[in-house]
Amino acid sequence: MKWDAWGDPALAKELSADIKGLLAAALGVTGDAAPGPDASEVVLRPSALTPDDLAALAAVVGEAHLSTADADRLPRAGGKSTPDLLRRRSRDPQDAPDAVVLPGSEDEITALLAVCTERRIAVVPFGGGTSVVGGLDPERGAFAAVVSLDLRRLDQLLDLDETSGEALLGAGLTGPAAEALLAEHGFELGHYPQSFRFATIGGFAATRSSGQNSAGHGRFDDMVRGLRVVTPTGRLDLGRAPASAAGPDLRELFLGSEGTLGVITAVRVRVHPVPAVKAYEAWTFPDFTTGAAALRAVEQQGTGPTVIRLSDEAETMINLAMTEKIGGEAAISGCLAVTVFEGTAEQVAARHQLTRAALLAAGGTSLGEAPARAWEHGRFNAPYLRDSLLDAGALCETLETAAGWRDLHALRFAVTTALTEALPGSLVLCHISHVYPTGASLYFTVVAALGEEPLQQWGAAKRAACDAIVRSGGTITHHHAVGTDHRPWMADEIGDLGVRILRAVKAEIDPAGILNPGKLIP
Amino acid sequence: MKWDAWGDPALAKELSADIKGLLAAALGVTGDAAPGPDASEVVLRPSALTPDDLAALAAVVGEAHLSTADADRLPRAGGKSTPDLLRRRSRDPQDAPDAVVLPGSEDEITALLAVCTERRIAVVPFGGGTSVVGGLDPERGAFAAVVSLDLRRLDQLLDLDETSGEALLGAGLTGPAAEALLAEHGFELGHYPQSFRFATIGGFAATRSSGQNSAGHGRFDDMVRGLRVVTPTGRLDLGRAPASAAGPDLRELFLGSEGTLGVITAVRVRVHPVPAVKAYEAWTFPDFTTGAAALRAVEQQGTGPTVIRLSDEAETMINLAMTEKIGGEAAISGCLAVTVFEGTAEQVAARHQLTRAALLAAGGTSLGEAPARAWEHGRFNAPYLRDSLLDAGALCETLETAAGWRDLHALRFAVTTALTEALPGSLVLCHISHVYPTGASLYFTVVAALGEEPLQQWGAAKRAACDAIVRSGGTITHHHAVGTDHRPWMADEIGDLGVRILRAVKAEIDPAGILNPGKLIP
Repeated sequence: MKWDAWGDPALAKELSADIKGLLAAALGVTGDAAPGPDASEVVLRPSALTPDDLAALAAVVGEAHLSTADADRLPRAGGKSTPDLLRRRSRDPQDAPDAVVLPGSEDEITALLAVCTERRIAVVPFGGGTSVVGGLDPERGAFAAVVSLDLRRLDQLLDLDETSGEALLGAGLTGPAAEALLAEHGFELGHYPQSFRFATIGGFAATRSSGQNSAGHGRFDDMVRGLRVVTPTGRLDLGRAPASAAGPDLRELFLGSEGTLGVITAVRVRVHPVPAVKAYEAWTFPDFTTGAAALRAVEQQGTGPTVIRLSDEAETMINLAMTEKIGGEAAISGCLAVTVFEGTAEQVAARHQLTRAALLAAGGTSLGEAPARAWEHGRFNAPYLRDSLLDAGALCETLETAAGWRDLHALRFAVTTALTEALPGSLVLCHISHVYPTGASLYFTVVAALGEEPLQQWGAAKRAACDAIVRSGGTITHHHAVGTDHRPWMADEIGDLGVRILRAVKAEIDPAGILNPGKLIP
Repeated sequence: MKWDAWGDPALAKELSADIKGLLAAALGVTGDAAPGPDASEVVLRPSALTPDDLAALAAVVGEAHLSTADADRLPRAGGKSTPDLLRRRSRDPQDAPDAVVLPGSEDEITALLAVCTERRIAVVPFGGGTSVVGGLDPERGAFAAVVSLDLRRLDQLLDLDETSGEALLGAGLTGPAAEALLAEHGFELGHYPQSFRFATIGGFAATRSSGQNSAGHGRFDDMVRGLRVVTPTGRLDLGRAPASAAGPDLRELFLGSEGTLGVITAVRVRVHPVPAVKAYEAWTFPDFTTGAAALRAVEQQGTGPTVIRLSDEAETMINLAMTEKIGGEAAISGCLAVTVFEGTAEQVAARHQLTRAALLAAGGTSLGEAPARAWEHGRFNAPYLRDSLLDAGALCETLETAAGWRDLHALRFAVTTALTEALPGSLVLCHISHVYPTGASLYFTVVAALGEEPLQQWGAAKRAACDAIVRSGGTITHHHAVGTDHRPWMADEIGDLGVRILRAVKAEIDPAGILNPGKLIP
């Protein structure tokens, strides 16, 4: 993962002539932004850890698994939101964790948390580094120093129960690494968020990630059967059975806890056989309202697509769902929907047939396989484009929410209006990518000409959008999590008593408050 | 609901000659037990509330909604476990709440909790009174008095969102009352636990109830989209969207909280159109292991039955799944499985066909519709039989657990062995009635000759069974909840840190500790 941009440097995307044309025509963006510094030019705030601190940390993990080198600190300086990328491009001194520690076991994590509690050092648990909500910012809270606790060494398939369809996965496994281990046994997790190639099992759990196959396999939190967590005051091994009435479900306190309540070390997840067959079909609907009603019908009838998503008119017009064709001639009119089906041949045939019937009845027109395959081909690539857009002088960022079907269109209108008013002349695009019987997510992409003060420019737009979301009854986040960026809206989301409950849990588990200060809990 | 037995007096079940024959042959039970007292003969501990206490409570709800009469206190003296029924049959002085209050609004509940906090009065929230785990015992904890807070006046359909398929239901609505209100609009909740006719929406949420249609519609906690809760220190209105990544899911703290953390006043639930079509098919499998593997195949393939359940050889032999035929000539050999399908004609046809194929492939033999319809006909009646058995001198009780498919048979063996050793000569029957991709529930019915000290007799058996459950990795309860009866095993279920977390949440929300003392939280 690049330190100042998304992903694998070898996969960086040049902007096509089509996209450049679109930027010029729609936003008046024609030039290039000033290039950011090279890694060697970045000035990091020096490590604040004392030699004694470092000796105490090294005594736990060994010298080889502790680093204060800039080359290790810089890639853990934050996540991958557009504000993160803008901050990385600064030539002013940048903040970063004071050290990186790489524990190799739960015992080492217990010992590290004891050292950090005793020495008053904040701890930011670190997975794949793909947070887009400030979840990894190296905040020190009340302390003088902060360490990044990188979980990558917890990278094992600890148990596979083929009968139950459950796997116990180390928290530090990335999406591809977990899938590769499972595939050796013919199984799949099937969790494909856009961050799939870099993000980790622990991060999926800590942030309540949702993947592109959520219609078929559910959100990541739906897949979780058990959690192992190390905290400053003890350990938890939660989740005895597929379902239980043994009181409050404490797994649900640690799912979405974003490293503030403990370090998730392993996750027991539901897995399924690698699908034998896949089928694809794309559709167009005359407008977003008709398309959304069609997705609602499919989900409420339970016809069983693995993927189902709907782009609005603007996304469809610029081919946003097909990254290779963005900005090219509009290939599809109306609103593009993509469906994918996975399973055995019988399952796929049955699900495809029932879904087709529902979409046809709801006013859809089939476009055949090709646009659905084109979506799948480019589905992890959009973040690369954002970096190239930034290079070209265009700010591109995303945000998301969810609500009941009844309230979805009013919510979309309110957010679109807020963004458009805050960023005059911008493009605001929207899609539905996660559906439930009672509602759906809304995912917005905003593209605007980069202003003089882009952090302030985006900050104002983001605040306006979040205010619009809570005013319209949406959740402040469907799958990006809270971090620092959504924290101001948490009291609205869960109420004052909800905030008090989170603080009480935190005080019990982490009385010194070392775990990820400044995130999630207001 | 009768005060000393299950349900509607008009529906009491005489034991058939077949059942009497079975009792004599299998257990040597031929006589009748000593009859219990009439309600008029029961001696209740006098109310400990002072005139000032009563005046303060009446000032909130009005004199008409406060009672210290034995006729009101006795029906709230506990739940409906066999130990409860045995205690009700005692001619010694019995415990009961010191008063019954019936608030009519959230504001009144807030005011009642303030009065009880100030006057140090314990509060037991009361729904339908069907707890079988001691969840309603009138324990006073550190206080001199306890009131039963009966929620029956919160009995409204507060909102119905037909587009999203969501209904906001008052916590005091019974199952049938809620279904009747929804049916006026063509909708159904579809939650049918055995307690359906008496239990309430708030109780379903507070205990994580699971209904007979769980394969199709999920457990009650799966259906919950939002919760309104009144606590001594504030109110909560949780659940903004069908799914969210806004931190820990606090709904999951109150689901299963059994009145210890707050009073659930309304529940926003997922509802669906009243099914147009139902189809039934019963099956037999040569043995329980083969049948369980068949249910696993159905659930892991997602073929979509609304109901699927499997009786073991012993349940099948005595026709336990068909209450009208219990103890009669064995109608079915092997292990009986019941499937029911609901939905539109197309959905039912597709689901039935896929399920049939899976059950046939797994070694099932179809028995046609009749046994499945017979199961449905009697599905709420088994608890009536338990009372008649007690009258006839036979102790009959149930308990349940759940685990992953891999561990299910070892768990069943361990529990059966523990019960059989503790109750020599007893009948131990078992079925699977709730299935998940990764595992299933096990529901045990035990019938034994009533001993001299039946409370101790059953207590020893229950402890042995619970110990066997936790030793075998099962959950201490799949859907009966914790109450007083399972509390000793909670530390095993969630660990010491889990217990500390629950205590910390309780201390924050209910610092005086008035809410349902002695239940759930060790």
